[in-house]
Amino acid sequence: MINTLYLPELREMLATQNVHEIKEFTVALHPARTAEFMEGLTPHEAWQLLSHADEPQRLEVFSYLTPPAQLEICENEDRDQIARLLANLASDDRVDLFQQLKPETQEDLLRRIPVADRREIQRLSQYPEGTAGAMMTADVARLSESLSVRDAFDELSRQAEMFETIYYLYVVDSENHLRGVVSARQLVAAMRRPNTTMRELMETKLVTVEATEDQEEVANRVAKLDLLAIPVVDHEHHMLGIITHDDVIDIVHDEAVEDAQRQAGVEPLNDSYIRINLWTLGWKRGIWLTILFFGGILTAVALKSYDGQLHAWKWLIPFIPLVISSGGNSGSQSAALVITALTRGDIRRNDWWRVAYRELAIGGMLGLGLGIFGLMLTYFFSGAPGVYESMVVPLTLVVVVMVGTFIGAMLPLLFHRFGFDPALMSNPFVAGIVDILGIVIYMNVAFVLLSGIG
Amino acid sequence: MINTLYLPELREMLATQNVHEIKEFTVALHPARTAEFMEGLTPHEAWQLLSHADEPQRLEVFSYLTPPAQLEICENEDRDQIARLLANLASDDRVDLFQQLKPETQEDLLRRIPVADRREIQRLSQYPEGTAGAMMTADVARLSESLSVRDAFDELSRQAEMFETIYYLYVVDSENHLRGVVSARQLVAAMRRPNTTMRELMETKLVTVEATEDQEEVANRVAKLDLLAIPVVDHEHHMLGIITHDDVIDIVHDEAVEDAQRQAGVEPLNDSYIRINLWTLGWKRGIWLTILFFGGILTAVALKSYDGQLHAWKWLIPFIPLVISSGGNSGSQSAALVITALTRGDIRRNDWWRVAYRELAIGGMLGLGLGIFGLMLTYFFSGAPGVYESMVVPLTLVVVVMVGTFIGAMLPLLFHRFGFDPALMSNPFVAGIVDILGIVIYMNVAFVLLSGIG
Repeated sequence: MINTLYLPELREMLATQNVHEIKEFTVALHPARTAEFMEGLTPHEAWQLLSHADEPQRLEVFSYLTPPAQLEICENEDRDQIARLLANLASDDRVDLFQQLKPETQEDLLRRIPVADRREIQRLSQYPEGTAGAMMTADVARLSESLSVRDAFDELSRQAEMFETIYYLYVVDSENHLRGVVSARQLVAAMRRPNTTMRELMETKLVTVEATEDQEEVANRVAKLDLLAIPVVDHEHHMLGIITHDDVIDIVHDEAVEDAQRQAGVEPLNDSYIRINLWTLGWKRGIWLTILFFGGILTAVALKSYDGQLHAWKWLIPFIPLVISSGGNSGSQSAALVITALTRGDIRRNDWWRVAYRELAIGGMLGLGLGIFGLMLTYFFSGAPGVYESMVVPLTLVVVVMVGTFIGAMLPLLFHRFGFDPALMSNPFVAGIVDILGIVIYMNVAFVLLSGIG
Repeated sequence: MINTLYLPELREMLATQNVHEIKEFTVALHPARTAEFMEGLTPHEAWQLLSHADEPQRLEVFSYLTPPAQLEICENEDRDQIARLLANLASDDRVDLFQQLKPETQEDLLRRIPVADRREIQRLSQYPEGTAGAMMTADVARLSESLSVRDAFDELSRQAEMFETIYYLYVVDSENHLRGVVSARQLVAAMRRPNTTMRELMETKLVTVEATEDQEEVANRVAKLDLLAIPVVDHEHHMLGIITHDDVIDIVHDEAVEDAQRQAGVEPLNDSYIRINLWTLGWKRGIWLTILFFGGILTAVALKSYDGQLHAWKWLIPFIPLVISSGGNSGSQSAALVITALTRGDIRRNDWWRVAYRELAIGGMLGLGLGIFGLMLTYFFSGAPGVYESMVVPLTLVVVVMVGTFIGAMLPLLFHRFGFDPALMSNPFVAGIVDILGIVIYMNVAFVLLSGIG
């Protein structure tokens, strides 16, 4: 929710051009909080405010503004000032922002940005969205192997402000091949042996990613090894940059949102729900809804083929949605459990049989439970019919729930086995397949139990 | 999948007690990789191997073993050795592991652990699972305000090995109240002014969490501010410990899994899918399945009340599942989109109207799309009936999809408004509600269109 607490004061300061108070406001709080209090301002007002702030504060607060506000500022405000701002932003944030600008703006800004930064933006822009290369920052401390601990400290104390992180120091050879890593902790611990070289100190068991690898892979590796940052290299092991822990948290968040959307049968939005264009949203939902609709037509075809039977035993009709949704719901549960277990690495390739066995056992248990409720239901609901009649719904529930759990668990495993994203087996998709089977099972159970007495 | 590449060699080394080779194996790779290669061994074999390793390697590799393997080792292996291992583990990991041991084992081990560590385990165990206190580590560098940069470095180089992180140094007063923070980067940058005190250097705009706050809140704060670690304080602002970035990544993962399970109508497992007890799993699924089942009974009641109508226009029957699942699917989509938007903070309190408007617009769009397919369908499928007949399914689809999207979006917002977890509005739950409405809409549309010509 937008924090409007200081909004009148901020507007007042702007109106009266009270530079002293504005400066005070920009240094008083953590820059993220400052940015929060500014959310109620228009991007133009926010920029006016920031242009009175000192440059470090301006940069910090700007980096915490919402992405749409940042974009609007870059598009509309004074180009020279924006270019200076961009030149000082962290290189990974900068390139993300940059790629969303209009081509004319990009070109105009690039001309005003110092040549080294310009080259870096262009280099980072090469990597496709979603790869390690597109996420990395090039602001990283590189040291040569022959540097002593004393010299390394000297070097760092000169450059510490420039880097996004100095918690790992990367040791490279003269051709920029990554040779090792020294943590700030190791360096501090080695302070009493100031002549030790980086070569002696460095850890050579390196975990790296290649620039073209998928961001999800990067997040998994960093999370598994509890790293603060992971170096990004090319295929010849040249040091290109690093990806830091905060980017990894963002990736984990994004991937979770993507999975949740996919699970509900929505193509991942890759954008804010409230901002995305309605036509795009319609497309991302419509495509799956249509696929599911055509699946639904099959249930209609199936039901139509049992016309005669439904006419003979009309009391079966009201239970159709109940029976098929019980199968669909238990199938969705199994699918979600297997998909989350796969992402967490809880299930391994040789666990197939174990999963199948567990799902059938659980399916039997749940089916029996629902079956007992179903028995009471048909008994009271259908006005005490014969023994065979009252067994139709309960028996169908047992079979449908077992089939639902089994299929719900196996489909994502199958997808995973063939290298697809198991989350594509969305809940509505599993439910759709189980719906059709549910009708077939229901009608066949009814036929077997009732045809003798029909 | 279990890596069995070195399994024969590892077993060979153990059989021949080849201590030299074992030591070599434990230092050759990153400890996480070493642990991976050991996954095929039994916990007892793994521990035998580790007991030949040097103590630092033993500790590191142990900390990367899977939690069940760690537990089994702690329960079954030599208590004195385990106590020594536990005394050196990071304090947050240790307490997690400790709390899962059998009470007898806990007691026995506590007696063998040095008193300072014992007190800390007992203190951290006080905080309930899921709070900041239960996640924090107490291994944190605390400095006094009057310390100079030079002395701080001296202090750190003596103690660097003891702490989980030295990237933030916390400044406390004589009564352990948290006063400020100095980053390793600031300290390094200040090296050329070695007499500066911590009081001058420290940042006093602190972001903290209280020990009793929820872990999800902690994760949000750390992710929003891109912190490496966040200090944990009590209500009097005493410094208790810190929570580090790697724990935050774990929280984000866990919360995503919980949400995905809730979305599919499963009570969050809080355990591995493959290890959880079948009865527990049955309960966590059964409770929701039963609730949904009783919702399903209402669809049966609704359908039964339209008996006469369904008898008069039998051709309506096969389309029942199609019509209601179209509503349910579009409702699930909306619910998932709104829930993910709420967790990401994309929707704010005053966005209600905007969400309602967008959902109705999208619902109309999608409903019209499906309606057109439905028109073609009934036309061909029902053997070219009259104009009124062929309008029933299409018109129902338009209304049902609009109602589905609207309700799917509004229910999670309503839950959120009243302080409940919006993810409780699971997809099957939304679908269940929309199912009943779908039947009512279908039957009423049919009645209006057909009663004149019936």
